[in-house]
Amino acid sequence: MSVVTLEKCRENIRKQLDNVVDFWLKYSLDRVHGGFFTCIGKDGKIYDELKYVWLQGRQVWMYCRLYRTMDRFHKPEILEAATVGGAFLRKFARVSSSSGQWKCAFCLTRDGKALKVQRTIFSECFYIMAMDELSRLTGDKDMQLEAEQMMEQLIYWVQVDPSGLGRPQLPGEVPINSLSVPMMLMCLVQQLTEGRGQEVAQKYKELGNWCVEQILQHIQRAGTAILENVSVDGSELPGCQGRLQNPGHALEAGWFLMLYGAQSGDKEIHRTAIRNFVELPYQYGWDKEHGGLFYFLDVDGHCPTQLEWSMKLWWPHCEALIAFLMAYSHTRKPELLEIFSEVYQYTFSHFPDAENGEWFGYLTQEGKVALDFKGGPFKGKSILPAQHSLICTQISVKMLSAAYFRPQVVKKKKK
Amino acid sequence: MSVVTLEKCRENIRKQLDNVVDFWLKYSLDRVHGGFFTCIGKDGKIYDELKYVWLQGRQVWMYCRLYRTMDRFHKPEILEAATVGGAFLRKFARVSSSSGQWKCAFCLTRDGKALKVQRTIFSECFYIMAMDELSRLTGDKDMQLEAEQMMEQLIYWVQVDPSGLGRPQLPGEVPINSLSVPMMLMCLVQQLTEGRGQEVAQKYKELGNWCVEQILQHIQRAGTAILENVSVDGSELPGCQGRLQNPGHALEAGWFLMLYGAQSGDKEIHRTAIRNFVELPYQYGWDKEHGGLFYFLDVDGHCPTQLEWSMKLWWPHCEALIAFLMAYSHTRKPELLEIFSEVYQYTFSHFPDAENGEWFGYLTQEGKVALDFKGGPFKGKSILPAQHSLICTQISVKMLSAAYFRPQVVKKKKK
Repeated sequence: MSVVTLEKCRENIRKQLDNVVDFWLKYSLDRVHGGFFTCIGKDGKIYDELKYVWLQGRQVWMYCRLYRTMDRFHKPEILEAATVGGAFLRKFARVSSSSGQWKCAFCLTRDGKALKVQRTIFSECFYIMAMDELSRLTGDKDMQLEAEQMMEQLIYWVQVDPSGLGRPQLPGEVPINSLSVPMMLMCLVQQLTEGRGQEVAQKYKELGNWCVEQILQHIQRAGTAILENVSVDGSELPGCQGRLQNPGHALEAGWFLMLYGAQSGDKEIHRTAIRNFVELPYQYGWDKEHGGLFYFLDVDGHCPTQLEWSMKLWWPHCEALIAFLMAYSHTRKPELLEIFSEVYQYTFSHFPDAENGEWFGYLTQEGKVALDFKGGPFKGKSILPAQHSLICTQISVKMLSAAYFRPQVVKKKKK
Repeated sequence: MSVVTLEKCRENIRKQLDNVVDFWLKYSLDRVHGGFFTCIGKDGKIYDELKYVWLQGRQVWMYCRLYRTMDRFHKPEILEAATVGGAFLRKFARVSSSSGQWKCAFCLTRDGKALKVQRTIFSECFYIMAMDELSRLTGDKDMQLEAEQMMEQLIYWVQVDPSGLGRPQLPGEVPINSLSVPMMLMCLVQQLTEGRGQEVAQKYKELGNWCVEQILQHIQRAGTAILENVSVDGSELPGCQGRLQNPGHALEAGWFLMLYGAQSGDKEIHRTAIRNFVELPYQYGWDKEHGGLFYFLDVDGHCPTQLEWSMKLWWPHCEALIAFLMAYSHTRKPELLEIFSEVYQYTFSHFPDAENGEWFGYLTQEGKVALDFKGGPFKGKSILPAQHSLICTQISVKMLSAAYFRPQVVKKKKK
């Protein structure tokens, strides 16, 4: 891949980002009740008024981050969307709990009544992301405190006692380490500490290290596989759950770890991140026949029980683009750039909707659009920064900057 | 479709049933811990030792029913499987509950420890089916009582107070009438009352009528659609949930209703069953391009949010075969036989696995095998009687008898 081609990628990503942001600004904001419509059809039409909290949080975070960090998005309409969405989220996302614990709804009615609560930590994660990012925009200390208090609750569930999540303890259950949990916590640590000074960094330092340990436990089978679920002492679990692979999650964890390695100066972690969490998931997760990354796989080649296992989703491809471009930028290995190019070709020839804008999210194994909406219960903004992390926009901002696209003129970031 | 062709269908179904029963007898029974392995790969290999309670209950019920009602299955190995499975289910399926309510697990470890509990009524439904059917085989009154007591619990959840199911009441929730609930209850009424005499029939009569009313509420849009979820007063709900269609469920409800109409002599119900719950779901649910029944649809043509919406599953095709053959047998309308023939062709040319026996359960929209296991968390025995109802085997027994396959020599069943 030449410098010229890479520069073209950058231009294209920039255009796609503009297109995606325009699409959501145009169709998603609810000026009557506040917050965002999240179920948006291929042509921008709202097909359901329910408001999914993951996507409320991500969208607030996104607008704040764009407004704060990229000149061309420093516009009143972005600021308005961020604050209108943030106010709705703050007012309605938290549900009262008989145990007195802080819990967020998963889904709200248009006017903010809780409709569904998940027995997991993820609504809370996106709530924290949004509150922290918004506090940076507004300077509201109380909002920052809100984020940090919710974070305390989350740490308690994950490290001390999960019973407040509402799942009954059953005799056949064994506690598991699921990759998504330390990965999300690590992302939150980055979010909460970024630029907050030494005291805050110190507060979450131990947690960050714990997340790294937990993530590394997912390297299994003598380094030849990343498994999605392992036991809490880091050994393989029996059955489907133990053999499950989710290449998109592994790649996502990969670039989180790569950043951690680069920032902490830990070269060994950095090498492990690239070898085990970036190169390896691509090797086993890429569909050699039809292209694209599988959603789920079984490490022993059994058929996964998830009906959607062979589908190609937009987000693992975003994670892969970020991971390979970052890995190349840090190492200058041409083979990493080659894979970036392959993922780029697949992604940009399959997901964007040239007719109505934005991206399709769900393709069949063969690459045909299987679900044509632009937003649904789990899908929000499609382009890179729409992912659920601070780092995601950092890197997409970086991707749009010369640093990542003219690697030959830039010094190594790492070390 | 000629008499000769119909006779060939009957022979083929008979062979498939033998093949499927052999497959499960060979691979599923756990002689060490009792119960059945339910995660079985394409070649019969166990790929996970977890025991899913829906499939424990269905398999017990199936063996009992085959043993009791079909001469060629009145064999010691069928009896053994039924009793070994039944003992495991009785011993382990029920979980203790802090509220003192009866609840069944959804998933057990190999040695019977509860691993997962669903906040729905369906594990309990299949537990009731199995216990009642087993009590008919063994003459065990206590087991019959167990089934009836669990049924009381179920009625309480459905008609009085669902909070014991474990779902927190949320301010945005509205109570809904979901087709699967009255449909399953109706099936249970048939199961519990069949041949039990007048007193038991009387006990459940009102419930049976209530189920019919609830099912009929799903006829919406001036009779042009069956919607999966409606409000408790029978009006359309907003959003995706309200527009959802599940052709397989509608067809299943259709032949339950048809039987109810035939047995009660209610001609209007019988006509409605065929027109609205059999012919109509076929019209909107059949894929004109690739053949087969869609899993989910949106009545307004939006894309459903279920990732698997366009897949072709084995069970809606079983329901359709039963529904159309029964409808034809009751009415002698040739167009119903033509549709039976179309569904038959699709089903038997796509689902059976000629190489290793049994059926594949999950195809892509285009008809390619998407998941190749023979048993999974929700899929058990494939052929018609593997469905979750008493009536299903009744009808498959009937389908295998001359009555349904030589319609011209048989008197009308109805009236």
